[in-house]
Amino acid sequence: MTPNRRTARLSNLGEFNLIQSIPRQLSTQGFLPTIGLGDDAAVFSPSSPQHVVLSTDLLIEEIHFTRKTATLYNIGYKAAAVNLSDMAAMGATPTGIFVSIALPSSLIQQDWQEFYRGLGAPCKTHKVRLLGGDTSSSPTSLFISITIIGQAHPEHILTRNGAKTGDLIYVSGTLGDSAAGFAYLKKYKTPPKPSTLSTPMSYLVHRHLNPTPRVALGQHLASQPYASAAMDLSDGLSRDLQHLCRQSRVGALIYSSHIPMSQQMQRYAKRIHTTPLHWSLHGGEDYELLFTIPQKWEYELEKFIKRRRIPISQIGTIQPKGFGIRIEHSENIQDYLQPQGYEHFSPRTER
Amino acid sequence: MTPNRRTARLSNLGEFNLIQSIPRQLSTQGFLPTIGLGDDAAVFSPSSPQHVVLSTDLLIEEIHFTRKTATLYNIGYKAAAVNLSDMAAMGATPTGIFVSIALPSSLIQQDWQEFYRGLGAPCKTHKVRLLGGDTSSSPTSLFISITIIGQAHPEHILTRNGAKTGDLIYVSGTLGDSAAGFAYLKKYKTPPKPSTLSTPMSYLVHRHLNPTPRVALGQHLASQPYASAAMDLSDGLSRDLQHLCRQSRVGALIYSSHIPMSQQMQRYAKRIHTTPLHWSLHGGEDYELLFTIPQKWEYELEKFIKRRRIPISQIGTIQPKGFGIRIEHSENIQDYLQPQGYEHFSPRTER
Repeated sequence: MTPNRRTARLSNLGEFNLIQSIPRQLSTQGFLPTIGLGDDAAVFSPSSPQHVVLSTDLLIEEIHFTRKTATLYNIGYKAAAVNLSDMAAMGATPTGIFVSIALPSSLIQQDWQEFYRGLGAPCKTHKVRLLGGDTSSSPTSLFISITIIGQAHPEHILTRNGAKTGDLIYVSGTLGDSAAGFAYLKKYKTPPKPSTLSTPMSYLVHRHLNPTPRVALGQHLASQPYASAAMDLSDGLSRDLQHLCRQSRVGALIYSSHIPMSQQMQRYAKRIHTTPLHWSLHGGEDYELLFTIPQKWEYELEKFIKRRRIPISQIGTIQPKGFGIRIEHSENIQDYLQPQGYEHFSPRTER
Repeated sequence: MTPNRRTARLSNLGEFNLIQSIPRQLSTQGFLPTIGLGDDAAVFSPSSPQHVVLSTDLLIEEIHFTRKTATLYNIGYKAAAVNLSDMAAMGATPTGIFVSIALPSSLIQQDWQEFYRGLGAPCKTHKVRLLGGDTSSSPTSLFISITIIGQAHPEHILTRNGAKTGDLIYVSGTLGDSAAGFAYLKKYKTPPKPSTLSTPMSYLVHRHLNPTPRVALGQHLASQPYASAAMDLSDGLSRDLQHLCRQSRVGALIYSSHIPMSQQMQRYAKRIHTTPLHWSLHGGEDYELLFTIPQKWEYELEKFIKRRRIPISQIGTIQPKGFGIRIEHSENIQDYLQPQGYEHFSPRTER
C-alpha cells in the first residue's frame, strides 16, 4: 500500500475499494458454511443441537466515545469487546460479527484500517470471524453498529431472570477502573500515547479502552448448574443490578465493603478528591459479569474459580422483591441503591 | 396513552420506558424459543436442516433518507422493507429483526412510535418478529441499523456468483419508479399527505417510500433449479448488474427496449424533461430482484410466473467476462453500461 492510498480521503474511494481494504487478519475460523462479504446476506449453520445467540450494540461518536480520548484502533477494539461481553453474559461461544459503519468524510483510509485492526484484535483472541456488514458515509458523526452471533447449548444459556431469594450475588474483576480511566482521559484533547502514561494511569486507561470480555467465565457458568442469573456490567452496577432484579422479580442487598476495587482506582480517586465507591457503583463500562448462584453451589464455584484464577467477588444476596435494592455501608447503615449509571435520554445523565 | 406522553420529548423518558412503548403489534410469530428484549442477547434455533441467513443495513438521515420527504412511519416502513428485500435476494424466509436506533433529542415519543408502526407493517405481512436491538440518543442525525435474520434450506440459497455465459437476465417489476418518486418528493420541505397527490404521483411516491420486497419470488426461485444468480436492486441496475457480473466473473448484454418501465414514470420523466432510461438504469432503490437462469428453464419459469402473476421481464443475456457489460439501444448500437448508481464516498454521486 502506497502512502498516498493510506492517507487518501475516504470520499475519493468507492465502497467496494473500502471493503477490499479491510485487513485480512480477521480470523477465518468460525462456523461454516458461510457466504459472507460480497453477497446480500451471510449464511451459516450452528452445530446441532446448538442454538443461535445474537446481540447488537450501537456505538456513537460523542455519546459512547469521543475521538478526543480514543483512537480509531481503540474504538474498533472496544466495539468488538463490548459485543463479546454480551456473548459472555449469555454463556455463549461467539463465532462471527457484522460491522456496520457510517464514516464522516473527514476520515482517511488509514483511520478505517486502524478501526478494523482494533476490531480484529479481540476477535482473533476469541476466533470470531467478520461475516458482513454495511458501510456508508455519514453527514456528521462516526456511527458504528455491531451485531454479534454465537452459539450455545439450549440448556446452557445464562439469562437475567432466574435469580431467587437467598442466591449469592457475584461480580468478576474490579469495578470502577473504566470510569477512572475515562475521568483521566477527559483531560486530553487528543488520545495520549500509552507510553507517556504512568503505570497506574496506563492500567486505568487500558481498562477503559480495552475491557476484557469474560467469555471463559460466562461459558463456565453456563456449563455448570451454578448460575441462576447473569448479565454483563455496561451501565454501572447500580443500574445493571436493577435490570437483573427487575427481570428476576427480586430485591437485593449488597455490601459496600465487598465491592472489588483496584488500588490504582482508589489512589486516583483520592488524588482527585472523588470517592472510589461512586465510580465502582455508578461508573459503567466495566464489562465484568454480574451473576447470582444458589447458596448450595458456593463451595463448588469458589473451588473452580480458584483453579482457573478468574477474579470474582461475592458482593451480597438476593432478597424478596419488597426489600428493594439496598446497599449496606456498615452494620445497621443501609440505604436504597439508586441507579446513577449512564442513561440515554435522561436529563440527569452522569458518568 | 395520554396526549402528554405522546408528545413527551424522548429526553424526558428513560430508555426502559421507550422500549416498553414499542407498539406490541409486531407479530409474535416466528421461530422459537426466543429470549428477546430485556436480556443481553436473543436466542433461537432454526428448524433443522435450515441454515441461518443474516443481513444488516444502515439507514442514515441525510444520506439514505431525509425527514423533509419521509415521515417517521415511512422511514420505519422502508427500513424493514429494504432488509426484507435482502432476504428475498437470498431466497430465504425472513423470521426476525433487530432494530438499533440513535435518536436526536428533538424527536418526540410519537415519532418513535410512528417509526415502529411503519416498521411493523411489512414485518407483519411477512410474519417477522422484533427480536431485540439497541437504543441510544444521537448528537445529530437519526441513525438506524437493522439486522434481519431468516432461514433457508442449505441447497436452496440464491447467491450472486453462479451466472454463466448464455444465461438469461431477468428483473421483477418496473425500474425507475422510486427515483421518479424521490425526484418529485424533493420539491417538498415537509412530507406531503398522500391524499393531496395526483394518482400517478401517488403511485411513484408510494414506490419510493413503500417498496415491495419480492420475498415470494425469491423463495420460488430458490425452491426450483432455475436461478443461477440473484440479488436485489438497491443501487440501480447499472451498478448492481456490475456487482453480479463481478461475483460471477462474467459480462452481460442488456437491451434498453426490454427494461420494464411504468407509464407513470415515463410520463413524469417527459414532463420534467429527463429520460426514463436514466432513472431505470441508474435511479436505485427499486428493491426489485435481478436474477439469471439457464436458457433451458425459460419456459418453466415463465409458465410459473404467469400462474402467480408476478411481473418479470427478460432484459438480456450473460456474456463472457471479456465482453464487459453492454447495453444495446437499437440494432448495432451498443455502448458500455457505466455504473452511475449511488455510491457512498464518491465525489461523483448522482441519484
